[in-house]
Amino acid sequence: MVGGARAVARCDELGRAPCSDMAGGLWRGYLTPAHRAALDRVGAWMREAGMATRIDPAINLIGRYEGSGDGPPLIIASHIDSVRDGGFYDGPLGVMLGIECVAALHATGRRMPFAIEVIAFGDEEGSRFPAAMLTSKAVAGTLGEVPAMVDVDGISLATALGPWGSAPERMTQARHPGALAYLEAHIEQGPVLEAEGLALGVVTGIAAQARFSVVVEGQAGHAGTCSMPLRRDALTGAAEMVLAMENLARETDGDCVATVGRIDVLPGAANVIPGEVRFTLDVRSGAEARRDAAAEAMRDAMGVIADRRGLYVCVERVHDLAACPCDPRLMDMLEGALVEAGHAPRRMVSGAGHDAMIMAALAPVAMLFVRCRGGISHNPAEHVDPADAAAALAVMLGFIERLGDSCA
Amino acid sequence: MVGGARAVARCDELGRAPCSDMAGGLWRGYLTPAHRAALDRVGAWMREAGMATRIDPAINLIGRYEGSGDGPPLIIASHIDSVRDGGFYDGPLGVMLGIECVAALHATGRRMPFAIEVIAFGDEEGSRFPAAMLTSKAVAGTLGEVPAMVDVDGISLATALGPWGSAPERMTQARHPGALAYLEAHIEQGPVLEAEGLALGVVTGIAAQARFSVVVEGQAGHAGTCSMPLRRDALTGAAEMVLAMENLARETDGDCVATVGRIDVLPGAANVIPGEVRFTLDVRSGAEARRDAAAEAMRDAMGVIADRRGLYVCVERVHDLAACPCDPRLMDMLEGALVEAGHAPRRMVSGAGHDAMIMAALAPVAMLFVRCRGGISHNPAEHVDPADAAAALAVMLGFIERLGDSCA
Repeated sequence: MVGGARAVARCDELGRAPCSDMAGGLWRGYLTPAHRAALDRVGAWMREAGMATRIDPAINLIGRYEGSGDGPPLIIASHIDSVRDGGFYDGPLGVMLGIECVAALHATGRRMPFAIEVIAFGDEEGSRFPAAMLTSKAVAGTLGEVPAMVDVDGISLATALGPWGSAPERMTQARHPGALAYLEAHIEQGPVLEAEGLALGVVTGIAAQARFSVVVEGQAGHAGTCSMPLRRDALTGAAEMVLAMENLARETDGDCVATVGRIDVLPGAANVIPGEVRFTLDVRSGAEARRDAAAEAMRDAMGVIADRRGLYVCVERVHDLAACPCDPRLMDMLEGALVEAGHAPRRMVSGAGHDAMIMAALAPVAMLFVRCRGGISHNPAEHVDPADAAAALAVMLGFIERLGDSCA
Repeated sequence: MVGGARAVARCDELGRAPCSDMAGGLWRGYLTPAHRAALDRVGAWMREAGMATRIDPAINLIGRYEGSGDGPPLIIASHIDSVRDGGFYDGPLGVMLGIECVAALHATGRRMPFAIEVIAFGDEEGSRFPAAMLTSKAVAGTLGEVPAMVDVDGISLATALGPWGSAPERMTQARHPGALAYLEAHIEQGPVLEAEGLALGVVTGIAAQARFSVVVEGQAGHAGTCSMPLRRDALTGAAEMVLAMENLARETDGDCVATVGRIDVLPGAANVIPGEVRFTLDVRSGAEARRDAAAEAMRDAMGVIADRRGLYVCVERVHDLAACPCDPRLMDMLEGALVEAGHAPRRMVSGAGHDAMIMAALAPVAMLFVRCRGGISHNPAEHVDPADAAAALAVMLGFIERLGDSCA
């Protein structure tokens, strides 16, 4: 077995003990025994594919396949850690496909004008320590000082790094000297490709995200004694706002998503008209300006609804993440490879964050999304069709060819 | 000071120590020291108004003013207990106005063809023991066997009744032999009268109530990766249902009220599309048939919304309370007195339960609502204008005259 099927089979193998620390499911946290077991296995696969391997001070596994020139390398990477009770493909698939790319070149003794480095990042999910993407930040040179942190068992990051011969203050030594390009394949973690009958999509960037905290104030009252026209019900007002925001996001025709994921009602009794409602609003779009325009329209709509209903609304911006666009030239190369392989070109924004977002500080980045069944991720039901992985591999190899041509 | 102003002033006096067991506010629970202090005071006021007083085995205070005949009496009553940190007028106002009615007759030595009994019920709110309207049930003969119950301090009802010379199994001995009619004046506890610029309203009955538990199931998903058209968001669906129910209740033109007072969202994270929403629905109307028709229309609307959005909805009826209509003949008498006193006739359903609902098992009942500021009740801000209390007293006296005429 080689290629896409092998990449998927290897993800499956990594989903079980000793590469999982959870009975009956997958959990592979940063610096855990499962992490070590996985690196042993992945390191062996890298060497088998013709790479020299090393582990950097942030405990990233790096396999290097030399090129014919001595310029900066192409990095193909993703993460090897998982959430608790997660799926097998979120992260590892991108690493396994990177290994398959090199294995395919190595099988014919082919050398590109640039070296290829395949990196298995140790921490992207932040599922052990309360910080995410520690290790790609170390490689990209954006880590800064690492604050003291402990896992749920009270084990500090320093204690966990000790047996690996590293320490928090040494993690920044993982900084990479510079790369020609960064390529990451990742499962979509959403249902869009499946819904459109497509195996692959070219990511245009990581969405700009904004999180708001909304408070709607009305007047609590007796559910029996207050007639409908005299009510200032905070929940019916909030319900109208939720629908207005759904409509505004829908009107952006796929560019923007808006989610109310939490809602709390006070006093919260079946026989009392809600006097106050608090909810979260998460808005994402491919670009900050469009995200902010949508959020502004939502804020306006909430104000209009509140005024009409005699309610008071307070919208507070609590979290902000800038968009991270992929490199236009690399996107064109990826799309060219996609079309050449017979796929319909499909460009899409990534609503979730990825290591690529961090690595954009080091190199121009490109990202390829692979369809996953039902859009389900962070869940044991996560599933990737081996044929889709094979298709992704072919496109990645086409991308490498194009990158090689551009160096000529 | 006499009449309505005195009734209000006496409520104020009962709102403070020793008639309250709460520092800086009012709490007068059943069988508490505050209850005993209040009964001492109210008993004295009853005797001053020409009544003979006694305390029955359910610890209701009964003042009796004899009539010229020996038939069944008119009972004028309400409750003397309060919720924790409650208002001064919810209950006591009706008792104080009853005393003022008798005081007015007694001042001129007037005897009606029937005796008048003013009752201060000991427990309506259920604010000490986990059961409400224990004492009007005892008088109406509908109490049945009293289950063992304790207050928040672990004191049993039996222990609490001991110092009063009674016991739970003796409470049923408070059963009344029968009454000509039952009249209760009570603050509206709602904003309708105030909104219409009216001091008083004739209650047509206690609303029929139904409580539903609703579960909406959709599909949880990543707030960033799932595009709007592909979502099956349980919360946006529930929001549409909440608005549909508000509209359906509004369309009944005052006959029906519907309230969603609690809503819980799963998983309840800002970055996860809600997969499941649970909420309560409380529907009330003057008659069961109209309540049920409204509830059925709401159930249908929820089904349509769920189908359109690819959601699953389950509506379970968890609580049901029949309507309790007031006596048509007594309502006419009350309305006649109201119009004679220069008020606009206004009939209204009571959305909240009252002792009158219980006493309907013993006698035909009539109820008079008195405007309260802002519709606020169960709150220290509860307020009644002494002029409105005076207006209520005049109407109650007019009612007593009409009842006397009907006995001739």
